[in-house]
Amino acid sequence: MENKKENFSEWYNEIVEISGLSDKRYPVKGMNVWLPYGMKIMREIDRIIRETVEVRGIEEVNFPVLITRDQLSVEFEHVKGFENQVYWVTKGGNDKLDVEMALRPTSEAAMYGMFALWIRSHTDLPLRIYQIVNVYRYETKHTRSFIRVREIHFFEAHTAHATFEESENQLLDYLEIWKKVSSELCIPYIVNKRPEWDKFPGAMYTLAGDTLVGGRSLQVATMHEYGTNFSKNYNITYLKDDGTHDYVNQTTFGMSERLLAAVIGIHGDDKGLILPPSIASVQVIIIIIPSENPEVKVYAHKVERMLREIGIRASIDDRDNYTPGFKYNEWEMKGVPLRIEIGEKEFIKNTVTFALRPTREKRTVPVEKISETLTILDEIKTILTNRAEEYMKNSIHELNDINEIAEVNGFLKVGWCGRKECSDKLEEKFGLGNLGIPYESNEKKKCIVCSKPGSIAVFSHSF
Amino acid sequence: MENKKENFSEWYNEIVEISGLSDKRYPVKGMNVWLPYGMKIMREIDRIIRETVEVRGIEEVNFPVLITRDQLSVEFEHVKGFENQVYWVTKGGNDKLDVEMALRPTSEAAMYGMFALWIRSHTDLPLRIYQIVNVYRYETKHTRSFIRVREIHFFEAHTAHATFEESENQLLDYLEIWKKVSSELCIPYIVNKRPEWDKFPGAMYTLAGDTLVGGRSLQVATMHEYGTNFSKNYNITYLKDDGTHDYVNQTTFGMSERLLAAVIGIHGDDKGLILPPSIASVQVIIIIIPSENPEVKVYAHKVERMLREIGIRASIDDRDNYTPGFKYNEWEMKGVPLRIEIGEKEFIKNTVTFALRPTREKRTVPVEKISETLTILDEIKTILTNRAEEYMKNSIHELNDINEIAEVNGFLKVGWCGRKECSDKLEEKFGLGNLGIPYESNEKKKCIVCSKPGSIAVFSHSF
Repeated sequence: MENKKENFSEWYNEIVEISGLSDKRYPVKGMNVWLPYGMKIMREIDRIIRETVEVRGIEEVNFPVLITRDQLSVEFEHVKGFENQVYWVTKGGNDKLDVEMALRPTSEAAMYGMFALWIRSHTDLPLRIYQIVNVYRYETKHTRSFIRVREIHFFEAHTAHATFEESENQLLDYLEIWKKVSSELCIPYIVNKRPEWDKFPGAMYTLAGDTLVGGRSLQVATMHEYGTNFSKNYNITYLKDDGTHDYVNQTTFGMSERLLAAVIGIHGDDKGLILPPSIASVQVIIIIIPSENPEVKVYAHKVERMLREIGIRASIDDRDNYTPGFKYNEWEMKGVPLRIEIGEKEFIKNTVTFALRPTREKRTVPVEKISETLTILDEIKTILTNRAEEYMKNSIHELNDINEIAEVNGFLKVGWCGRKECSDKLEEKFGLGNLGIPYESNEKKKCIVCSKPGSIAVFSHSF
Repeated sequence: MENKKENFSEWYNEIVEISGLSDKRYPVKGMNVWLPYGMKIMREIDRIIRETVEVRGIEEVNFPVLITRDQLSVEFEHVKGFENQVYWVTKGGNDKLDVEMALRPTSEAAMYGMFALWIRSHTDLPLRIYQIVNVYRYETKHTRSFIRVREIHFFEAHTAHATFEESENQLLDYLEIWKKVSSELCIPYIVNKRPEWDKFPGAMYTLAGDTLVGGRSLQVATMHEYGTNFSKNYNITYLKDDGTHDYVNQTTFGMSERLLAAVIGIHGDDKGLILPPSIASVQVIIIIIPSENPEVKVYAHKVERMLREIGIRASIDDRDNYTPGFKYNEWEMKGVPLRIEIGEKEFIKNTVTFALRPTREKRTVPVEKISETLTILDEIKTILTNRAEEYMKNSIHELNDINEIAEVNGFLKVGWCGRKECSDKLEEKFGLGNLGIPYESNEKKKCIVCSKPGSIAVFSHSF
């Protein structure tokens, strides 16, 4: 297997392939096939997202994939931002369509005409919906599984509020949702306010959750404040108590299959995937050490039942034609967080032997304490979180001198005057992208390029 | 509200709208917006499907929506069957694409090139996968929510087997799956083997589950035996034990959002929707009869908790600004199968009062027997099933004389010689479609058109 530290890209591609997450041999470039194992993990991620947003009253909807050119053209900045990466449907059967239609690159243009029909008075507000759908981007850049693809598994929440203040509060709620989702996936992050030129097309401003994968930043969540930018164009108004009409204030929140990319890239090692317990479709794999005694197998199945009864996704690998060693390797490669080994010894002593995937540590526990498996799974979550946070902490470098830049990787915190030309210089010279100002930071610092007064900003090599 | 018996079409459209299932005002004809309530119900239907197929080892995948013209053209009958109803993507950004790509109308052409890569030897068989995705058909016929739309929420299972016998057994397993799914939805059906000219394009033969909605047949499940028709074209072979290669035998199984259409059309009444308990997002709605005594509300919330603890999806409608009567109507319209009324009387006597949606029967039960709610939900399932089966039984007419045809509706069982021209005559004269021969029927009967020897076939007006 490839070496993660030395050849991150090759290691990543290999792990996606051998662990059976996705197959990129599909004949359309950048459109990959989700294989059963990848689907199962993504379903668990979606489940966590659904549970987290629905408990807050954000409800699921599903809008059509096709957006007419008219719908898309309503907001100028928005259409300008996407028109070069939209797939167009122009024919139905053998007929040329009267109206060309885009495959949604995102759903503002699909939704907001309907918002104008749905929202009449302040009692219809807030309107808060989400959908989990595929979106389409005609990417010209190099594609990479789960990170840059042309068909993207996508979560998008859209809200409308009476006042700007309420929409600002919605963004705070998104940050809470993101905190919860990322914590289940053991993904550390920083939130940055993107520079003007890199905000979402049509937004007032954009906050992004950025994590670090293989030394490069990966944008895994974005939250946008639209204010009335869209509602003015889509004419989404509500009747106020005083009888006048006003435009609604809107926000959105997006996440995607990049969450899976982050899980692979952050936690995996040279033995394969490592899955946080919350999203592992098999949380505990039980492997039977071959024995003459038929009771061992019976005992293993009893343990499986006990685990399932306490809500753990446990499975037994009882294939006869593979050695335990082969099975260990296979399930380690697939990232199952916890293994239980059961052989003659365990059967006789009424114990089970655990092997923790992240540390490979082994532990033997009496079977009557099997419910401790839950604690061990929590412990694994903590190990993954701590390890990832440690890595990220060590990859944040605060620099004062432009000559130090070439030597380091990760998130570079440097002074920046706020002008695009200084940012561009760092990009040209070092290939660094400007992720913006850390959220709620007001640290002042001289610009590392021009030495004028500025603020701390975060730069990095990005996916 | 419209009258179901007299104006089925208008009644159906009204119910879809007022119960908040879907909004058809989206600017692309035949592409509707799934609203939160409709989504919740469809998600429950999908959950039942997933559970039923996965327990049989059929695994979920997800293939791209775009299919190149080359992929689609591999099987001649198949492309011929779909080419007039395919949406074509021809542009990416401002570029004309080198290869035109179809939005999948179904996924044979997307999948089978990959099957050829995945299947090497008999140990790779059987291959059994499914996906739940949207498919696209450029329909020229009149569209109707959930019944005939251009973006279809679709389940499709695809399997590959070493022998024809095994693929035939797979079809039997599909029938078992269908039996389970339809029973959870309380949908009665007959299985018909479609006539040659109406089988799935490329199939050897097609079995369909047909139900009856508003006097007309609705195809709600299809199972196809492909034999080696596709594998020969997509070159899907496996290495046999004897060292030679052979083509795999394939099958598919399809269901769609028409399941929801059937639920609406079969169970609904002039008060609104009626949902089978298995797919109701709210199974029990608790309505508090206003009282001066604050303990009544506390008691109602206690009952809600008790219900949730035994796994029932219960909710309380504790809005203060609506009367109980208004709430009864609203939740009846939304089809919640069971209502609990709690007022001063119930609080004092430690009881709850049930109202069963299908029969509107009321029943008072001591709160310590609250677990009987499960039994009552089962009872509601039985009521819906029996009522639907009764309706269907009464709508099956075995006719011997062509002159009787104009007088009846439903499924008409008549003798048919097997020739298309006799079938066409019934279509021209009475607008009747030929659903084919009832599965496993070998009843002989003279053709109702030409009097030549034939078999019993089923004809109906169809959606």
